[in-house]
Amino acid sequence: QCDLTGWWENELGSKMHVDAVDSQGNFTGEYYTAVSSAQKPIEPSPLLGSQHLDEDGQCTFGFTVNWKFSDSTAVFAGQCFAGDGGEDVLQSIWLLREKVDSLPSDWKATR
Amino acid sequence: QCDLTGWWENELGSKMHVDAVDSQGNFTGEYYTAVSSAQKPIEPSPLLGSQHLDEDGQCTFGFTVNWKFSDSTAVFAGQCFAGDGGEDVLQSIWLLREKVDSLPSDWKATR
Amino acid sequence: QCDLTGWWENELGSKMHVDAVDSQGNFTGEYYTAVSSAQKPIEPSPLLGSQHLDEDGQCTFGFTVNWKFSDSTAVFAGQCFAGDGGEDVLQSIWLLREKVDSLPSDWKATR
Amino acid sequence: QCDLTGWWENELGSKMHVDAVDSQGNFTGEYYTAVSSAQKPIEPSPLLGSQHLDEDGQCTFGFTVNWKFSDSTAVFAGQCFAGDGGEDVLQSIWLLREKVDSLPSDWKATR
Repeated sequence: QCDLTGWWENELGSKMHVDAVDSQGNFTGEYYTAVSSAQKPIEPSPLLGSQHLDEDGQCTFGFTVNWKFSDSTAVFAGQCFAGDGGEDVLQSIWLLREKVDSLPSDWKATR
Repeated sequence: QCDLTGWWENELGSKMHVDAVDSQGNFTGEYYTAVSSAQKPIEPSPLLGSQHLDEDGQCTFGFTVNWKFSDSTAVFAGQCFAGDGGEDVLQSIWLLREKVDSLPSDWKATR
Repeated sequence: QCDLTGWWENELGSKMHVDAVDSQGNFTGEYYTAVSSAQKPIEPSPLLGSQHLDEDGQCTFGFTVNWKFSDSTAVFAGQCFAGDGGEDVLQSIWLLREKVDSLPSDWKATR
Repeated sequence: QCDLTGWWENELGSKMHVDAVDSQGNFTGEYYTAVSSAQKPIEPSPLLGSQHLDEDGQCTFGFTVNWKFSDSTAVFAGQCFAGDGGEDVLQSIWLLREKVDSLPSDWKATR
Protein backbone atom coordinates (compact mmCIF):
# COMPACT_ATOMS: atom_id res chain seq x y z
CA GLN A 1 0.00 0.00 0.00
CA CYS A 2 1.51 3.23 -1.11
CA ASP A 3 4.51 1.26 -2.25
CA LEU A 4 6.40 3.15 -4.92
CA THR A 5 8.19 0.01 -6.06
CA GLY A 6 7.66 -0.73 -9.74
CA TRP A 7 7.01 1.14 -12.97
CA TRP A 8 5.25 4.50 -13.30
CA GLU A 9 4.44 6.61 -16.33
CA ASN A 10 3.37 10.23 -16.50
CA GLU A 11 1.21 12.14 -18.95
CA LEU A 12 4.24 13.21 -20.98
CA GLY A 13 5.31 9.63 -21.57
CA SER A 14 8.22 9.70 -19.14
CA LYS A 15 8.67 6.50 -17.20
CA MET A 16 10.43 5.54 -14.03
CA HIS A 17 11.28 2.37 -12.24
CA VAL A 18 11.55 2.38 -8.47
CA ASP A 19 13.52 -0.46 -6.95
CA ALA A 20 12.58 -1.90 -3.58
CA VAL A 21 11.78 0.68 -0.89
CA ASP A 22 13.75 -0.08 2.30
CA SER A 23 12.54 0.01 5.89
CA GLN A 24 13.45 3.70 6.21
CA GLY A 25 11.44 4.55 3.11
CA ASN A 26 14.54 5.14 1.00
CA PHE A 27 14.69 3.95 -2.59
CA THR A 28 16.73 4.05 -5.77
CA GLY A 29 15.58 3.63 -9.34
CA GLU A 30 15.89 4.84 -12.88
CA TYR A 31 14.13 7.65 -14.74
CA TYR A 32 13.45 7.46 -18.50
CA THR A 33 12.44 10.98 -19.47
CA ALA A 34 10.45 11.56 -22.64
CA VAL A 35 11.32 15.25 -22.73
CA SER A 36 14.52 17.20 -22.41
CA SER A 37 15.88 20.72 -22.75
CA ALA A 38 19.43 19.42 -23.20
CA GLN A 39 21.46 19.11 -26.39
CA LYS A 40 22.66 15.56 -25.95
CA PRO A 41 20.53 12.46 -26.54
CA ILE A 42 18.42 11.37 -23.62
CA GLU A 43 19.74 8.52 -21.45
CA PRO A 44 18.14 6.70 -18.55
CA SER A 45 19.28 8.41 -15.35
CA PRO A 46 19.50 7.28 -11.75
CA LEU A 47 17.01 8.47 -9.17
CA LEU A 48 17.27 8.47 -5.40
CA GLY A 49 14.64 9.43 -2.87
CA SER A 50 12.51 8.59 0.09
CA GLN A 51 8.86 8.20 1.03
CA HIS A 52 6.87 8.23 4.21
CA LEU A 53 5.51 4.86 5.30
CA ASP A 54 2.04 5.90 6.49
CA GLU A 55 -0.41 3.12 7.17
CA ASP A 56 -3.18 4.79 5.22
CA GLY A 57 -1.33 4.40 1.97
CA GLN A 58 -1.39 8.08 1.10
CA CYS A 59 2.25 8.82 1.65
CA THR A 60 4.22 11.82 0.47
CA PHE A 61 7.54 11.25 -1.23
CA GLY A 62 10.42 13.02 -2.92
CA PHE A 63 13.29 12.06 -5.18
CA THR A 64 16.24 13.47 -7.09
CA VAL A 65 17.20 12.62 -10.67
CA ASN A 66 20.85 13.11 -11.59
CA TRP A 67 20.71 13.45 -15.38
CA LYS A 68 23.43 11.49 -17.16
CA PHE A 69 23.19 13.50 -20.38
CA SER A 70 23.29 17.00 -18.92
CA ASP A 71 24.62 19.01 -16.00
CA SER A 72 21.11 19.45 -14.67
CA THR A 73 19.36 17.94 -11.69
CA ALA A 74 15.63 17.44 -11.21
CA VAL A 75 13.69 16.97 -8.00
CA PHE A 76 10.14 15.70 -7.64
CA ALA A 77 7.81 16.03 -4.63
CA GLY A 78 4.48 14.29 -4.51
CA GLN A 79 1.92 12.07 -2.89
CA CYS A 80 0.50 8.65 -3.61
CA PHE A 81 -3.29 8.31 -3.83
CA ALA A 82 -5.42 5.22 -4.07
CA GLY A 83 -7.19 5.43 -7.43
CA ASP A 84 -10.78 4.43 -8.12
CA GLY A 85 -9.92 1.16 -9.80
CA GLY A 86 -7.58 0.05 -7.06
CA GLU A 87 -4.60 1.49 -8.86
CA ASP A 88 -2.35 3.95 -7.14
CA VAL A 89 -1.95 7.39 -8.65
CA LEU A 90 1.08 9.60 -8.06
CA GLN A 91 0.69 13.38 -8.05
CA SER A 92 3.93 15.29 -8.13
CA ILE A 93 5.47 18.63 -8.93
CA TRP A 94 9.04 19.01 -10.10
CA LEU A 95 11.84 21.52 -10.34
CA LEU A 96 14.56 21.31 -12.98
CA ARG A 97 17.80 22.97 -11.96
CA GLU A 98 20.00 23.81 -14.92
CA LYS A 99 23.64 24.72 -14.55
CA VAL A 100 24.43 28.40 -15.01
CA ASP A 101 27.79 30.12 -15.35
CA SER A 102 27.72 32.33 -12.33
CA LEU A 103 25.60 33.70 -9.50
CA PRO A 104 24.10 36.60 -11.48
CA SER A 105 22.46 34.03 -13.74
CA ASP A 106 21.01 32.09 -10.83
CA TRP A 107 17.59 33.74 -11.20
CA LYS A 108 16.88 31.84 -14.43
CA ALA A 109 18.33 28.45 -13.50
CA THR A 110 15.18 26.73 -12.27
CA ARG A 111 12.14 25.71 -14.27
CA GLN B 1 35.71 21.59 -5.02
CA CYS B 2 31.99 21.71 -5.15
CA ASP B 3 31.97 19.16 -2.38
CA LEU B 4 28.73 19.32 -0.46
CA THR B 5 30.22 17.43 2.47
CA GLY B 6 29.97 19.35 5.73
CA TRP B 7 27.74 21.91 7.40
CA TRP B 8 25.61 24.49 5.61
CA GLU B 9 23.28 27.18 6.95
CA ASN B 10 20.66 29.19 5.11
CA GLU B 11 19.32 32.69 5.65
CA LEU B 12 16.43 31.38 7.77
CA GLY B 13 18.79 29.71 10.22
CA SER B 14 18.13 26.17 9.01
CA LYS B 15 21.22 23.97 8.99
CA MET B 16 22.18 20.78 7.29
CA HIS B 17 25.01 18.34 7.51
CA VAL B 18 25.99 16.39 4.42
CA ASP B 19 27.95 13.21 5.05
CA ALA B 20 30.60 12.05 2.59
CA VAL B 21 29.59 12.23 -1.08
CA ASP B 22 30.28 8.91 -2.80
CA SER B 23 31.83 8.30 -6.20
CA GLN B 24 28.41 8.46 -7.89
CA GLY B 25 27.68 11.82 -6.29
CA ASN B 26 25.15 10.35 -3.88
CA PHE B 27 25.00 11.52 -0.30
CA THR B 28 23.06 11.28 2.94
CA GLY B 29 22.87 13.77 5.77
CA GLU B 30 20.65 15.47 8.28
CA TYR B 31 18.53 18.61 8.03
CA TYR B 32 17.87 20.84 11.05
CA THR B 33 15.08 23.14 9.97
CA ALA B 34 14.53 26.43 11.76
CA VAL B 35 11.01 26.82 10.41
CA SER B 36 8.00 24.53 10.22
CA SER B 37 4.34 24.57 9.30
CA ALA B 38 3.69 21.41 11.34
CA GLN B 39 2.09 21.06 14.75
CA LYS B 40 4.68 18.83 16.36
CA PRO B 41 8.07 20.01 17.63
CA ILE B 42 10.82 20.14 15.04
CA GLU B 43 13.27 17.23 14.92
CA PRO B 44 16.38 16.71 12.84
CA SER B 45 15.40 14.78 9.73
CA PRO B 46 17.32 12.62 7.30
CA LEU B 47 18.21 13.87 3.83
CA LEU B 48 19.22 11.92 0.77
CA GLY B 49 20.34 13.25 -2.58
CA SER B 50 22.89 13.47 -5.31
CA GLN B 51 25.15 15.99 -7.01
CA HIS B 52 26.97 16.22 -10.28
CA LEU B 53 30.73 15.90 -10.04
CA ASP B 54 31.80 18.56 -12.54
CA GLU B 55 35.43 19.51 -12.56
CA ASP B 56 34.70 23.22 -12.54
CA GLY B 57 33.23 23.04 -9.08
CA GLN B 58 29.89 24.54 -10.08
CA CYS B 59 27.77 21.44 -9.76
CA THR B 60 24.02 21.19 -9.57
CA PHE B 61 22.49 19.00 -6.90
CA GLY B 62 19.21 17.85 -5.43
CA PHE B 63 18.05 16.20 -2.25
CA THR B 64 14.96 15.00 -0.41
CA VAL B 65 14.18 15.60 3.26
CA ASN B 66 11.86 13.08 4.90
CA TRP B 67 10.50 15.05 7.87
CA LYS B 68 10.41 13.00 11.06
CA PHE B 69 7.85 15.24 12.78
CA SER B 70 5.29 15.50 9.99
CA ASP B 71 3.85 13.63 7.04
CA SER B 72 5.46 16.10 4.65
CA THR B 73 8.41 15.77 2.33
CA ALA B 74 10.67 18.53 1.04
CA VAL B 75 12.89 18.57 -2.02
CA PHE B 76 15.66 21.02 -2.80
CA ALA B 77 17.33 21.70 -6.17
CA GLY B 78 20.34 23.95 -6.47
CA GLN B 79 23.83 24.71 -7.55
CA CYS B 80 27.15 25.26 -5.81
CA PHE B 81 29.06 28.45 -6.62
CA ALA B 82 32.54 29.48 -5.62
CA GLY B 83 32.16 32.56 -3.42
CA ASP B 84 34.39 35.60 -3.44
CA GLY B 85 36.26 34.73 -0.29
CA GLY B 86 36.98 31.19 -1.39
CA GLU B 87 33.89 29.90 0.35
CA ASP B 88 31.32 27.91 -1.56
CA VAL B 89 27.78 29.26 -1.74
CA LEU B 90 24.74 27.08 -2.35
CA GLN B 91 21.75 28.49 -4.20
CA SER B 92 18.65 26.36 -4.04
CA ILE B 93 14.90 26.38 -4.45
CA TRP B 94 12.63 24.02 -2.56
CA LEU B 95 9.17 22.51 -2.68
CA LEU B 96 7.34 21.37 0.43
CA ARG B 97 4.78 18.66 -0.22
CA GLU B 98 2.20 18.40 2.54
CA LYS B 99 -0.10 15.44 2.91
CA VAL B 100 -3.68 16.04 1.85
CA ASP B 101 -6.73 13.86 2.35
CA SER B 102 -7.66 13.16 -1.22
CA LEU B 103 -7.01 14.04 -4.85
CA PRO B 104 -9.38 17.04 -4.98
CA SER B 105 -7.15 18.74 -2.39
CA ASP B 106 -4.00 18.07 -4.37
CA TRP B 107 -3.97 21.59 -5.83
CA LYS B 108 -3.01 23.11 -2.48
CA ALA B 109 -0.53 20.50 -1.27
CA THR B 110 2.70 22.09 -2.44
CA ARG B 111 4.34 25.29 -1.22
CA GLN C 1 -7.31 34.13 -32.58
CA CYS C 2 -5.72 33.76 -29.21
CA ASP C 3 -8.41 35.99 -27.86
CA LEU C 4 -8.91 35.39 -24.17
CA THR C 5 -12.32 37.04 -24.23
CA GLY C 6 -15.07 34.76 -22.97
CA TRP C 7 -15.54 31.89 -20.56
CA TRP C 8 -12.88 29.36 -19.56
CA GLU C 9 -13.01 26.39 -17.22
CA ASN C 10 -10.15 24.41 -15.74
CA GLU C 11 -9.86 20.78 -14.67
CA LEU C 12 -10.78 21.65 -11.07
CA GLY C 13 -14.06 23.19 -12.13
CA SER C 14 -12.98 26.78 -11.59
CA LYS C 15 -14.32 29.19 -14.19
CA MET C 16 -13.36 32.62 -15.37
CA HIS C 17 -14.84 35.21 -17.61
CA VAL C 18 -12.53 37.55 -19.50
CA ASP C 19 -14.09 40.77 -20.71
CA ALA C 20 -12.96 42.39 -23.94
CA VAL C 21 -9.20 42.56 -24.45
CA ASP C 22 -8.11 46.09 -25.34
CA SER C 23 -5.62 47.16 -28.01
CA GLN C 24 -2.74 46.94 -25.53
CA GLY C 25 -3.68 43.38 -24.63
CA ASN C 26 -5.02 44.39 -21.22
CA PHE C 27 -8.17 42.83 -19.85
CA THR C 28 -10.41 42.58 -16.81
CA GLY C 29 -12.74 39.79 -15.83
CA GLU C 30 -14.05 37.67 -13.02
CA TYR C 31 -12.77 34.43 -11.50
CA TYR C 32 -15.13 31.84 -9.99
CA THR C 33 -12.88 29.47 -8.10
CA ALA C 34 -14.07 25.97 -7.27
CA VAL C 35 -11.43 25.48 -4.60
CA SER C 36 -10.26 27.55 -1.68
CA SER C 37 -7.98 27.34 1.34
CA ALA C 38 -9.81 30.20 3.04
CA GLN C 39 -12.35 30.05 5.87
CA LYS C 40 -15.01 32.27 4.34
CA PRO C 41 -17.40 31.21 1.60
CA ILE C 42 -16.10 31.58 -1.91
CA GLU C 43 -17.16 34.66 -3.90
CA PRO C 44 -16.49 35.62 -7.50
CA SER C 45 -13.40 37.80 -7.56
CA PRO C 46 -12.05 40.36 -10.02
CA LEU C 47 -9.14 39.55 -12.29
CA LEU C 48 -6.86 41.88 -14.18
CA GLY C 49 -4.13 41.00 -16.64
CA SER C 50 -2.60 41.30 -20.03
CA GLN C 51 -1.74 39.15 -23.03
CA HIS C 52 0.57 39.39 -25.96
CA LEU C 53 -1.12 39.97 -29.30
CA ASP C 54 0.96 37.68 -31.51
CA GLU C 55 -0.37 37.00 -34.96
CA ASP C 56 0.17 33.27 -34.68
CA GLY C 57 -2.46 32.97 -31.99
CA GLN C 58 -0.14 31.35 -29.47
CA CYS C 59 0.17 34.23 -27.07
CA THR C 60 1.45 34.18 -23.53
CA PHE C 61 -0.59 35.95 -20.88
CA GLY C 62 -0.73 36.68 -17.17
CA PHE C 63 -3.33 37.90 -14.72
CA THR C 64 -3.89 38.66 -11.06
CA VAL C 65 -6.92 37.61 -9.01
CA ASN C 66 -7.70 39.77 -5.97
CA TRP C 67 -9.75 37.39 -3.81
CA LYS C 68 -12.81 39.05 -2.29
CA PHE C 69 -13.22 36.45 0.47
CA SER C 70 -9.64 36.32 1.73
CA ASP C 71 -6.50 38.39 2.12
CA SER C 72 -4.76 36.33 -0.53
CA THR C 73 -3.81 37.12 -4.09
CA ALA C 74 -3.29 34.68 -6.94
CA VAL C 75 -1.34 35.15 -10.16
CA PHE C 76 -1.53 33.00 -13.27
CA ALA C 77 0.96 32.82 -16.15
CA GLY C 78 0.24 30.84 -19.27
CA GLN C 79 -0.09 30.46 -22.99
CA CYS C 80 -2.93 29.96 -25.41
CA PHE C 81 -2.70 27.02 -27.83
CA ALA C 82 -4.90 26.16 -30.77
CA GLY C 83 -6.54 22.84 -29.91
CA ASP C 84 -7.15 19.99 -32.30
CA GLY C 85 -10.84 20.64 -32.69
CA GLY C 86 -10.38 24.32 -33.40
CA GLU C 87 -10.86 25.17 -29.77
CA ASP C 88 -8.25 27.17 -27.92
CA VAL C 89 -6.63 25.60 -24.90
CA LEU C 90 -5.04 27.60 -22.10
CA GLN C 91 -2.08 26.19 -20.21
CA SER C 92 -1.17 28.07 -17.07
CA ILE C 93 0.67 27.82 -13.78
CA TRP C 94 -0.34 29.78 -10.72
CA LEU C 95 0.98 31.05 -7.45
CA LEU C 96 -1.24 31.71 -4.45
CA ARG C 97 0.15 34.27 -2.06
CA GLU C 98 -1.39 34.03 1.39
CA LYS C 99 -1.05 36.76 3.97
CA VAL C 100 1.36 36.02 6.79
CA ASP C 101 1.93 37.91 10.02
CA SER C 102 5.51 38.90 9.59
CA LEU C 103 8.67 38.48 7.52
CA PRO C 104 9.92 35.35 9.31
CA SER C 105 6.81 33.55 8.06
CA ASP C 106 7.35 34.66 4.50
CA TRP C 107 8.94 31.35 3.52
CA LYS C 108 5.59 29.54 3.73
CA ALA C 109 3.34 32.17 2.22
CA THR C 110 3.26 30.98 -1.36
CA ARG C 111 1.73 27.80 -2.76
CA GLN D 1 0.45 52.40 4.44
CA CYS D 2 1.13 49.42 2.29
CA ASP D 3 0.86 51.71 -0.67
CA LEU D 4 2.71 50.29 -3.62
CA THR D 5 2.82 53.65 -5.36
CA GLY D 6 6.36 54.72 -6.21
CA TRP D 7 9.73 53.20 -7.02
CA TRP D 8 10.95 49.77 -5.90
CA GLU D 9 14.21 47.95 -6.55
CA ASN D 10 15.03 44.30 -6.02
CA GLU D 11 18.28 42.52 -5.16
CA LEU D 12 19.04 41.90 -8.85
CA GLY D 13 18.90 45.60 -9.66
CA SER D 14 15.55 45.48 -11.41
CA LYS D 15 13.34 48.48 -10.75
CA MET D 16 9.67 49.21 -11.04
CA HIS D 17 7.48 52.21 -10.81
CA VAL D 18 3.91 51.81 -9.61
CA ASP D 19 1.54 54.60 -10.54
CA ALA D 20 -1.30 55.59 -8.24
CA VAL D 21 -3.27 52.70 -6.76
CA ASP D 22 -6.99 53.22 -7.29
CA SER D 23 -9.83 52.66 -4.81
CA GLN D 24 -10.20 49.04 -5.94
CA GLY D 25 -6.52 48.36 -5.34
CA ASN D 26 -5.74 48.25 -9.06
CA PHE D 27 -2.61 49.81 -10.43
CA THR D 28 -0.47 50.23 -13.53
CA GLY D 29 3.22 50.94 -13.79
CA GLU D 30 6.44 50.16 -15.55
CA TYR D 31 9.04 47.46 -14.95
CA TYR D 32 12.75 47.99 -15.72
CA THR D 33 14.29 44.56 -15.54
CA ALA D 34 18.02 44.18 -15.00
CA VAL D 35 18.04 40.59 -16.22
CA SER D 36 16.64 38.86 -19.27
CA SER D 37 16.69 35.51 -21.01
CA ALA D 38 15.64 37.08 -24.29
CA GLN D 39 17.75 37.89 -27.35
CA LYS D 40 16.61 41.45 -27.89
CA PRO D 41 17.77 44.43 -25.82
CA ILE D 42 15.81 45.04 -22.65
CA GLU D 43 13.10 47.71 -22.72
CA PRO D 44 10.92 49.08 -19.96
CA SER D 45 7.67 47.15 -19.97
CA PRO D 46 4.18 47.87 -18.69
CA LEU D 47 2.86 46.23 -15.56
CA LEU D 48 -0.70 45.85 -14.36
CA GLY D 49 -1.93 44.42 -11.09
CA SER D 50 -3.87 44.77 -7.91
CA GLN D 51 -3.34 44.80 -4.17
CA HIS D 52 -5.47 44.28 -1.13
CA LEU D 53 -6.20 47.39 0.90
CA ASP D 54 -5.87 46.01 4.42
CA GLU D 55 -5.72 48.49 7.24
CA ASP D 56 -2.72 46.87 8.85
CA GLY D 57 -0.50 47.73 5.94
CA GLN D 58 0.59 44.15 5.29
CA CYS D 59 -1.29 43.63 2.06
CA THR D 60 -0.75 40.92 -0.51
CA PHE D 61 -0.52 41.93 -4.16
CA GLY D 62 0.03 40.57 -7.63
CA PHE D 63 0.92 41.97 -11.02
CA THR D 64 1.62 40.99 -14.61
CA VAL D 65 4.48 42.30 -16.75
CA ASN D 66 3.93 42.18 -20.50
CA TRP D 67 7.50 42.25 -21.85
CA LYS D 68 7.94 44.60 -24.79
CA PHE D 69 11.13 42.92 -26.03
CA SER D 70 10.00 39.32 -25.96
CA ASP D 71 6.96 37.08 -26.29
CA SER D 72 7.13 36.23 -22.60
CA THR D 73 4.96 37.29 -19.71
CA ALA D 74 5.94 37.47 -16.04
CA VAL D 75 3.70 37.44 -12.99
CA PHE D 76 4.65 38.40 -9.46
CA ALA D 77 2.83 37.57 -6.21
CA GLY D 78 3.89 39.04 -2.91
CA GLN D 79 3.24 40.89 0.28
CA CYS D 80 4.20 44.26 1.69
CA PHE D 81 5.85 44.33 5.13
CA ALA D 82 6.68 47.28 7.32
CA GLY D 83 10.47 47.34 7.63
CA ASP D 84 12.42 48.15 10.76
CA GLY D 85 13.40 51.61 9.70
CA GLY D 86 9.90 52.58 8.73
CA GLU D 87 10.49 51.57 5.15
CA ASP D 88 8.20 49.10 3.48
CA VAL D 89 9.69 45.87 2.14
CA LEU D 90 8.13 43.85 -0.63
CA GLN D 91 8.55 40.08 -0.69
CA SER D 92 7.51 38.42 -3.89
CA ILE D 93 7.87 35.29 -5.98
CA TRP D 94 7.59 35.31 -9.76
CA LEU D 95 6.90 33.05 -12.69
CA LEU D 96 8.25 33.74 -16.16
CA ARG D 97 6.19 32.22 -18.94
CA GLU D 98 8.12 31.87 -22.17
CA LYS D 99 6.44 31.19 -25.46
CA VAL D 100 6.81 27.66 -26.76
CA ASP D 101 5.95 26.24 -30.17
CA SER D 102 3.35 23.72 -29.19
CA LEU D 103 1.67 21.90 -26.34
CA PRO D 104 4.28 19.12 -26.03
CA SER D 105 6.82 21.80 -25.10
CA ASP D 106 4.57 23.28 -22.45
CA TRP D 107 6.36 21.44 -19.63
CA LYS D 108 9.46 23.65 -19.99
CA ALA D 109 7.80 26.99 -20.61
CA THR D 110 7.78 28.35 -17.08
CA ARG D 111 10.72 29.36 -14.91
